[in-house]
Amino acid sequence: MYDEYGIFAFSFHLKKILDHIETPAELRRLSVDQLAQLAKELRGFIINIVSTKEGHLGASLGVVELTIALHYVFDTPSDLLIWDVGHQAYGHKILTGRKKIFDTNRQLGGISGFPKRDESEYDAFGTGHSSTSISAVLGMAIASKLQGDENKNHIAVIGDASIASGMAFEALNHLGETNANVLIVLNDNAIGIDPSVGALKKYLTNVKAGTAKEENLFECLNLDYSGPVDGHDIKALVFELERLKKIKGPRLLHVITTKGKGLKKAEEDQVAYHAPGKFDAKTGIRQQKEAVQEPIKFQDVFGHTIIELAKKNGKIVGITPAMPTGSSLKYMMQEMPERAFDVGIAEQHAVTLAAGMAAQGLVPFCNIYSTFLQRAYDQVIHDVALQKLPVIFCLDRAGIVGQDGPTHHGVFDMAYLRCIPNLVLFSPMDEVELRNIMYTAQQGLDLPIAIRYPRGRGAVFNWRQPFKTIELGTARELRRGNRLAILSIGPIGNVVKKAIEASSHPEEVGHYDMRFAKPLDTKTLDHVFTHYQYVATIEDGCKKGGFGSAVLEYANQKSVQKPIEIMGIGDSFMEHGTIEELHRLAGIDFDAILNFIEQPTRK
Amino acid sequence: MYDEYGIFAFSFHLKKILDHIETPAELRRLSVDQLAQLAKELRGFIINIVSTKEGHLGASLGVVELTIALHYVFDTPSDLLIWDVGHQAYGHKILTGRKKIFDTNRQLGGISGFPKRDESEYDAFGTGHSSTSISAVLGMAIASKLQGDENKNHIAVIGDASIASGMAFEALNHLGETNANVLIVLNDNAIGIDPSVGALKKYLTNVKAGTAKEENLFECLNLDYSGPVDGHDIKALVFELERLKKIKGPRLLHVITTKGKGLKKAEEDQVAYHAPGKFDAKTGIRQQKEAVQEPIKFQDVFGHTIIELAKKNGKIVGITPAMPTGSSLKYMMQEMPERAFDVGIAEQHAVTLAAGMAAQGLVPFCNIYSTFLQRAYDQVIHDVALQKLPVIFCLDRAGIVGQDGPTHHGVFDMAYLRCIPNLVLFSPMDEVELRNIMYTAQQGLDLPIAIRYPRGRGAVFNWRQPFKTIELGTARELRRGNRLAILSIGPIGNVVKKAIEASSHPEEVGHYDMRFAKPLDTKTLDHVFTHYQYVATIEDGCKKGGFGSAVLEYANQKSVQKPIEIMGIGDSFMEHGTIEELHRLAGIDFDAILNFIEQPTRK
Repeated sequence: MYDEYGIFAFSFHLKKILDHIETPAELRRLSVDQLAQLAKELRGFIINIVSTKEGHLGASLGVVELTIALHYVFDTPSDLLIWDVGHQAYGHKILTGRKKIFDTNRQLGGISGFPKRDESEYDAFGTGHSSTSISAVLGMAIASKLQGDENKNHIAVIGDASIASGMAFEALNHLGETNANVLIVLNDNAIGIDPSVGALKKYLTNVKAGTAKEENLFECLNLDYSGPVDGHDIKALVFELERLKKIKGPRLLHVITTKGKGLKKAEEDQVAYHAPGKFDAKTGIRQQKEAVQEPIKFQDVFGHTIIELAKKNGKIVGITPAMPTGSSLKYMMQEMPERAFDVGIAEQHAVTLAAGMAAQGLVPFCNIYSTFLQRAYDQVIHDVALQKLPVIFCLDRAGIVGQDGPTHHGVFDMAYLRCIPNLVLFSPMDEVELRNIMYTAQQGLDLPIAIRYPRGRGAVFNWRQPFKTIELGTARELRRGNRLAILSIGPIGNVVKKAIEASSHPEEVGHYDMRFAKPLDTKTLDHVFTHYQYVATIEDGCKKGGFGSAVLEYANQKSVQKPIEIMGIGDSFMEHGTIEELHRLAGIDFDAILNFIEQPTRK
Repeated sequence: MYDEYGIFAFSFHLKKILDHIETPAELRRLSVDQLAQLAKELRGFIINIVSTKEGHLGASLGVVELTIALHYVFDTPSDLLIWDVGHQAYGHKILTGRKKIFDTNRQLGGISGFPKRDESEYDAFGTGHSSTSISAVLGMAIASKLQGDENKNHIAVIGDASIASGMAFEALNHLGETNANVLIVLNDNAIGIDPSVGALKKYLTNVKAGTAKEENLFECLNLDYSGPVDGHDIKALVFELERLKKIKGPRLLHVITTKGKGLKKAEEDQVAYHAPGKFDAKTGIRQQKEAVQEPIKFQDVFGHTIIELAKKNGKIVGITPAMPTGSSLKYMMQEMPERAFDVGIAEQHAVTLAAGMAAQGLVPFCNIYSTFLQRAYDQVIHDVALQKLPVIFCLDRAGIVGQDGPTHHGVFDMAYLRCIPNLVLFSPMDEVELRNIMYTAQQGLDLPIAIRYPRGRGAVFNWRQPFKTIELGTARELRRGNRLAILSIGPIGNVVKKAIEASSHPEEVGHYDMRFAKPLDTKTLDHVFTHYQYVATIEDGCKKGGFGSAVLEYANQKSVQKPIEIMGIGDSFMEHGTIEELHRLAGIDFDAILNFIEQPTRK
């Protein structure tokens, strides 16, 4: 039992401080001496839940003390706090009213794995992609000033990998010439998802070692620099933040943390424990997947195939912006370090670097998650497609990605790439097709190509088959019918295949793996429009402007007067959940397709 | 007459050195002492041609000495030279084989106003948008290394405004951790098109004044910094470049130049003389347009209207990434400096800054050229639309822009924005419509909106009419007919109007100004599909995925079985030329529309 002076009682029930904290208001009633214990409990809480519910682990463990200190010192939610990227915000969520529902993290209908304005007034700005926080917080600080609210504090927490990305620099460059009341907390743990790279990282290492020279890089940008501070010394953090709270104007606090702090295994293998899946909360040992044989991941087909091709074609190089593990380019980086490049969180640079390489005769595979290619859209148009430079884009995580939710679904790519002249747009139905298009592309196309494939595993076991060249703009007729033709693109074709097989009259249904969203296989389309009563398209991507829309445009050109059913993602942002759940919500899962096939009429 | 030792003879015919130089090979046969004279001649050549043919002036005048020195010292085209943005490359073009056709600059069929790979082997990389050169040149240097060409030099010339943009920083961050043989020439003239802004600019000013402290910002990024050097002292430049040529690895040379150098008026008014139109080659005095009364420019309607609205609505702010003059936000910056922001060449930052402001209740008008919004595509999706933040995007220079050519045409916006959920997409047919949609938007939409309007002048004189609210998703019926309905979006509707009026049976033709590409006015579309035999759409934008495609998608949903003619920009990059010439090439000019209307059948 706690009396009305519960805070005082905490010291006698150390293990339960967290039990009594629902919001930062309660946190602020603690003494500074109690915060270290709270940190311990919060860390335990995160570990316990993530060990069974999965999610991002290492980043949040690294900022436990920082999270507590920020909410302790600043008056959130009145003071505005933004977590860059946001996968380090679990502690923040737990301390700001979401402790009891934290076990719904990343589940359909549950809380988001990232800060989200809709979810809590403490989430000042939604994040997910990196390096947005400084711009957003500066906008807020300018708003406060214009609205006469001079006392409000505006804080962005950003990692050393994220601050090296272009838009963060743009924001710092602006911030440094304002007198906006902004505190940037540089959370320097020398790692993003993979270890940080780049000259800035080296520089920060020098700063930490005390070997950097007198004028600090951030001071060059007119920011009031302080630190480095040990980010796990909660008293030091509170002390420094209290001091900084009294100062106005643009400030940057350099905090040193360890990703995965407090769980030995996570500290030792920071890449694996970024999002470790299920693990033992005590030992940290990751749960081994049962030995069910599953098809290989698409990313690994990419990772192994690029090496196989690069051994024979000396012109091949690989580029990833900060996703060597996620893209599986790490294998090539290990085997051919001089030909595989992690350029950091720098999608814009990655694309134009690839263009420069292609201009000089190399064959660059530029591997970028579909959602992150949105960061380099102009470069794809202006530096690659306009100059017809044969860069090979491999867009991993295309389509619905699951628990990472709306910030990460790669559903817009076919719509935003299809309008770009000179760009070939392909999606393999399975691993063999991915290998073959990679093989085809490196032979020397005279155009750039974007190859989109999803997160997760493919459909076939025997994927390492001899390479075959794929003729540009050709579809595959998988099954011929007479009533209904389904035109699929990408791995969703495998679901279509099963649905047709399960239907009552499979012999009536034709199935075409269109493969190329651009150029379309017009010969196959002409055949389909002539020989079938009904036509449907299906894609794991947005319907507006996507593959189905391309088929419509062609049908209209040809004055086809048949109903065409377009299946895909509707015109709203899909939330988080499993891929299966979200496909069901979008009406592109097995049941929806089967149901569609079984309808007596299509319209 | 010149003998076979022509070079020697030059000193006796000083005015004619340039006459004997077609390529850098001839330039390299000059003595260093002759270069200053050549610079004078080259400057005169540029002034003479641009004074009558128009084009970008100030930037090229500023780098005359640098251009000569680079080609003199380095072995172009074997050594690779990239001009960032590229509007400063006139001298480069003249010295590299294009002197005789330089008077075709920016004309249809003539040479491009920007470097272009197709045009010359000396144009190592095509440019147009800023800040791409460091990425591209690093890609090339890595290619050279992998291909065993260790002696090749790789040089990028980049301005101080461009180097402050995010992707340039990403490239520097990568460059600094390589040993690539790259020389960055920082052309510091403290101005882009408008004066440079930001903390980096202040810092560079300190460096120039000698007040910066010991460690240089570029040295923090592990670059070998030298300078500043007077960029108009050609001997000093040649001397320093010779020295740098002998060093390998990443180097940065800081060169100070004056934009417009050598033409007094251009030095004095650097903004106006960026692209001054016709002027007197001797005095520099700009030619006054004849006093023909013309409608106002769309940009000025924006510039004046935002002030008018901001006077009544204290929440309105304006943002431009480095285009205060081009967007006409400069008027608001002058009148309400605390509420109008030039953030530099930083489109990504501009958009998320606006999102941060909107999150705190301001009403930001974020004015970005259509082609440059491609740089902030992810931010529009991730930071604005996903969070439903009511940012008002004003996309100037939408559609074909004319002489700037394929790097600058704003033809993709409707296709790449239409697939984004929550985003309203509007294009005004005239100035009054632009005013009214600005008025409507600032009243407090609960969604973001993108308003696209073209370069140049509108259609009406009496544009300053009382504001009217536009209902979301409503079209305007301009004319009712029975046979053919033309659905236009944007100012091209004025051409449609004239073409209908000139046609033989105007009474048969209906004309609908659709205004909203999203949400579509489905009521009007239902009417059109019911009451007309034929339907056509027309837009000054790409056909793939654009407005016409949206109409097709809706027609398909409604099982409309009528032919729909889609008119717009086809699936290739449009070259440079006048807007009229390019509209003609695309088949969306007056004649094409009239011809279409007069066809007896549509299909």
